[in-house]
Amino acid sequence: MGEATRIAHTGLRGRIMPAERAAGLIASDDTVGMSGFTGSGYPKAVPLALAARVDAEHAAGRPFRIKVWTGASTGPELDGALARVDGIEFRLPYNSDPVAREKINRGQMSYFDMHLSQVAPMAWQGFLGDLDVAVVEVTGIRDDGSLIPSSSIGNNKTWLDRAKKVIIEVNRWQNPALEGMHDIYYGTALPPARVPIPLVRPDDRIGSRYLKVDPEKVVAIVETDAPDRNLPFAAPDATAQAIAGHILEFLANEVGRGRLPASLLPLQSGVGNVANAVLSGLVDSPFSDLTAYTEVIQDGMLDLLDAGKLRLASATAFSLSPEAAARINSDMASYRDRMILRPQEISNHPEVIRRLGCIAMNGLIEADIYGAVNSTHVMGSRIQNGIGGSGDFARNAYISIFMTPSTAKGGAISAIVPQASHVDHIAQDVQVLVTEHGLADLRGLSPRERARLIIANCAHPDFRPMLADYFDRAMKGSHGLQSPTLPAEALSWHQRFMETGTMRI
Amino acid sequence: MGEATRIAHTGLRGRIMPAERAAGLIASDDTVGMSGFTGSGYPKAVPLALAARVDAEHAAGRPFRIKVWTGASTGPELDGALARVDGIEFRLPYNSDPVAREKINRGQMSYFDMHLSQVAPMAWQGFLGDLDVAVVEVTGIRDDGSLIPSSSIGNNKTWLDRAKKVIIEVNRWQNPALEGMHDIYYGTALPPARVPIPLVRPDDRIGSRYLKVDPEKVVAIVETDAPDRNLPFAAPDATAQAIAGHILEFLANEVGRGRLPASLLPLQSGVGNVANAVLSGLVDSPFSDLTAYTEVIQDGMLDLLDAGKLRLASATAFSLSPEAAARINSDMASYRDRMILRPQEISNHPEVIRRLGCIAMNGLIEADIYGAVNSTHVMGSRIQNGIGGSGDFARNAYISIFMTPSTAKGGAISAIVPQASHVDHIAQDVQVLVTEHGLADLRGLSPRERARLIIANCAHPDFRPMLADYFDRAMKGSHGLQSPTLPAEALSWHQRFMETGTMRI
Repeated sequence: MGEATRIAHTGLRGRIMPAERAAGLIASDDTVGMSGFTGSGYPKAVPLALAARVDAEHAAGRPFRIKVWTGASTGPELDGALARVDGIEFRLPYNSDPVAREKINRGQMSYFDMHLSQVAPMAWQGFLGDLDVAVVEVTGIRDDGSLIPSSSIGNNKTWLDRAKKVIIEVNRWQNPALEGMHDIYYGTALPPARVPIPLVRPDDRIGSRYLKVDPEKVVAIVETDAPDRNLPFAAPDATAQAIAGHILEFLANEVGRGRLPASLLPLQSGVGNVANAVLSGLVDSPFSDLTAYTEVIQDGMLDLLDAGKLRLASATAFSLSPEAAARINSDMASYRDRMILRPQEISNHPEVIRRLGCIAMNGLIEADIYGAVNSTHVMGSRIQNGIGGSGDFARNAYISIFMTPSTAKGGAISAIVPQASHVDHIAQDVQVLVTEHGLADLRGLSPRERARLIIANCAHPDFRPMLADYFDRAMKGSHGLQSPTLPAEALSWHQRFMETGTMRI
Repeated sequence: MGEATRIAHTGLRGRIMPAERAAGLIASDDTVGMSGFTGSGYPKAVPLALAARVDAEHAAGRPFRIKVWTGASTGPELDGALARVDGIEFRLPYNSDPVAREKINRGQMSYFDMHLSQVAPMAWQGFLGDLDVAVVEVTGIRDDGSLIPSSSIGNNKTWLDRAKKVIIEVNRWQNPALEGMHDIYYGTALPPARVPIPLVRPDDRIGSRYLKVDPEKVVAIVETDAPDRNLPFAAPDATAQAIAGHILEFLANEVGRGRLPASLLPLQSGVGNVANAVLSGLVDSPFSDLTAYTEVIQDGMLDLLDAGKLRLASATAFSLSPEAAARINSDMASYRDRMILRPQEISNHPEVIRRLGCIAMNGLIEADIYGAVNSTHVMGSRIQNGIGGSGDFARNAYISIFMTPSTAKGGAISAIVPQASHVDHIAQDVQVLVTEHGLADLRGLSPRERARLIIANCAHPDFRPMLADYFDRAMKGSHGLQSPTLPAEALSWHQRFMETGTMRI
C-alpha cells in the first residue's frame, strides 16, 4: 500500500476493494454514469470486470445489460469491452468505439446522440431517469474526501452528485501534478434558479479545483495503474495541410480587414488529423497570444503552447497521442498554469461560447450545396460517432468553420453532395466551408449564392460538373427557387454509392 | 402642427419633411435597416414613397434596388410595396409577405433566412457590409433627442447605432402610453468585450426605456398616422384545440411528476392559430403566475393577462389582431407594467433562453419519423416564411415542443414524412412533437424509438400504415440502423406530391 498515499481520507481507505468486487455492486438494468471523455479519464478496471461478469451471466442464460452515460467517447476497456459482451442496452451521449458502433448500426444497442452541453442539465431535469451508480476515475482522494480529478472532467460532477452509489477508481498512472489544473463550477441550477455563468475570459477560474462527493455514497474504491488510451494522430498529409492553409489565410484576411483581433478569438477545434493540422499551422502563423476554449486539448495545442503562441487552453479533457501524453506527463507542472479542465456543461455552454466569440472548427461527413452539414450518419443512416459538441459550438461561434477532405473512400464519395442525407448543422450554422480545394465564405449569402460558391470552391473537380448540372436542372425543375431541389434525385448519389460502391457515374 | 408635440426636440423638428422627400435620401444599392417585427412598428410612409420612386426609375429604364434588413416580417406597405416594384435585391432576416415570397421563390430576390438572435451581432461583426440608412418608426421624440419606441423593437437599436443616415417616422397612431414599456439593453459588445447579460427573470429590466440616436445622423423625420397591419387570427378550430389539449395535459403531467414548477417556466410561443389556441387553453388551466419570454405578444397572451394567469410577458413586438390591438390601445397604461419589449438580440438570446429555461412551442411544415423538423421549405425548396427565432428557442429551451396539424392541403400532405425535405431543427432539438392525434415525448429516446412513437402518436391514421411500412423496410434495407433510411425512397412522398398533387398513393 505504498501508493495508499493517493487516498488521504482515512475513512475511505476502508472501501478499497478489487475491481471484480466493485463490479458486483452494479446490477442489471442499472443506469451507470461513467467518467471519460475522448479516451481520457475513463475508469479502466471496473468496466472490464463488469464485462467479464456480464459475459458469465449471459453464459449462464441470465440477462444482464446496463445503461451507460459518459462524458463522450471513452476507451476500449469501457465501451469496447461492455459492447463486445452485449452489456450495453442504452448509451449516451457520444460513442466512437468501433465495437459499440457496430452494435448500434445493427440495431442491437440504443444510442441517444446528444449535444454535449446538454447532458448534465438533462440529467438534472429528470426525464432521463435515475442514475444508479457513478464510476469515476480520479487522480487521488484528499483528506477531506474531495477528489483530485484526472485527465478529463466531462460530466463527473453531475454523476457524483446524482448517483445513488459511487465507485471511484484511483489511477496511479495519472500525474499527481494534475492537481490544481481543474476548475469545477458548482453554480449550476435548474430554472428558475439559474444565474449568469461568471466566465468572461477563457482564463477565468470560477469554481473549485476538486470534485465533491458524499463519502456515505462511496461504496467502493478501486486502485488502478493504467494509461489513457487515446488514438495516435497521423502526421498531417498534404490534404490536411491544404485545408489548414486555406483557414489560416482566411483568418489572416479577417484580421487584416479589422474583423478579428490580432490574437484572434478563443479557438475551438474538433478532434482529428485535419484539426491538428490547423493547430500546427498556427505555430508558424503571425498570430500570437492565442487562447483556446474548446472540448479537448490535443497534440496541436501542445505544440502551440510550447511555441509560446497559445497563452491558455481551456477544455474538458485531454485527447493526446501516446507521445504527447508522455510529453505532458514529463512536465505537467509547467503546463498546469496554462491549462484549465472544466465540466463539459461549461466547456460547451452556449452562453459562454457566444460571449467569448469562439472560432469554431469542426469536421464533417458531408455537406450539401446549400451548406447543410451531416456530421454523424454515413449514407443518412449509419452512425459514425455522434454530434458531440459541434452543435454547441457551431451555432454560437463568432465564426463557424467546417472542414473536410473533398472526397472519401479513395475518391468514391464526394463530401459535397446535392442534399445532405442527414442534417446535424443547418446552413445557418455553417459559415465557412473548407476542403483542400478551397474555402467558401458563406456568411450573409442566400442559398443560391452559397450553392455556386460551394460547388466552385470546395467540391472535388471530378464532382463539380455533376453538382453544377444538378443545380442547373434544379433551377429549372424545383418547386421553389429559394433552395432549388429535385427530391427524386437529391439523394441519388447516396443510393448509387450503396448500390455500386461509388458516387461516380 | 398640433401633433408636433410628439417631437419635443426642437432641433429635430426642422428635419420634418414629406415621405417622398425622405425617400429621395435613399440611393440605389443602399443597404437600409428598417424597423418592424411581425407587422408591428414598421415604417409606413417612407417605404411606400420609395416604392413609388423605384417604380418611376424602372419606368425610366434606370435600375434601382436596395438591400433591406428588418427585425422580422413587416407589413404590406414595406415588403409588399417594395417587392412588387422589384425594389428589393437582398432581404434579411425573415419574410412572410406573399409578394416578396413569390419573388424569392422565382429566384428574383435574394433572401438570407437567419436566426433572429444573430442579426444584430452579425451586423456589428461587419461581414454583412455597411448599413447606409436606417428607417425607424417611433412613438415620439423626447426633448433630449431620445426616441420613444413604438410597437416593436426588433433591431432598431443596432440600425440606429450603425447606420450612416437615419430617417425617423413618428407615428401618431402609436399609443403614447407605450412610453415606459420598453427596455433597451445597451450592454452588448463585440468579443472579447462581451459580459454576462444581467437578466435572470423575465421581469428584469436591464436597460433604458428609450432608443438613442445621434441627432447629427438624422436626415429626415416623417410624420405618419397609420395602424400596424397584423393579420387577424382565425378562431381556434377543433384541430388547434386538440393540439392545445395534448400540450396542456403534457405540462400538467410534468408538474405532477415534479419536473416543472406549478407556475411552469417562461413560455415562448410561435405565431399563429395553433399557438394562440395553446395560450387560450392556458386561461382555463390550473397553472397560474405564468410568465412569457418570447418574441411576440399575441392575442392569446392578452387573454392570459386579462385572466390574471400571466404575470408578465417579455417580447420584442406585438403581433395582435386588429381587435386585440384596439383592446390594448384602449387600456395601454394598465398593460404597460405587465409587458416588456426588448431588442430581439435579447428576447431571443441563447444565453437568456437557456438560463430562464423557456418552454418553447413552435410550428412546423413537416417532421420526419426521427423528429427532424422542416420549418421553412415546402417540398424542400419553396420558402414559406423563415426560421425566425425558432432555432434560438428550440435548441436552448427547457422543453422544446413542436406542433402541427397532422395534414395540410385538405389531407393531401402528411406533416409526418419518411425524411424531412429540408431540416431547420435537428432531432436533438425537437423534444416533444404534437399533432391533433397525439403527443410524442421524444426526450431521451434513440432514433428508432422516436420513429415508432411519432408514427403511432402523431401521424394521421391515413398515413400511418405507409410510414410504418417505410420504417419496416428501412429496418431491413438501410445502410446502418441508427436511423434506418432508404435514400431512393426517402423523399418520394414529396416527389409524388409535386407530380400528382398528393402524397397519398
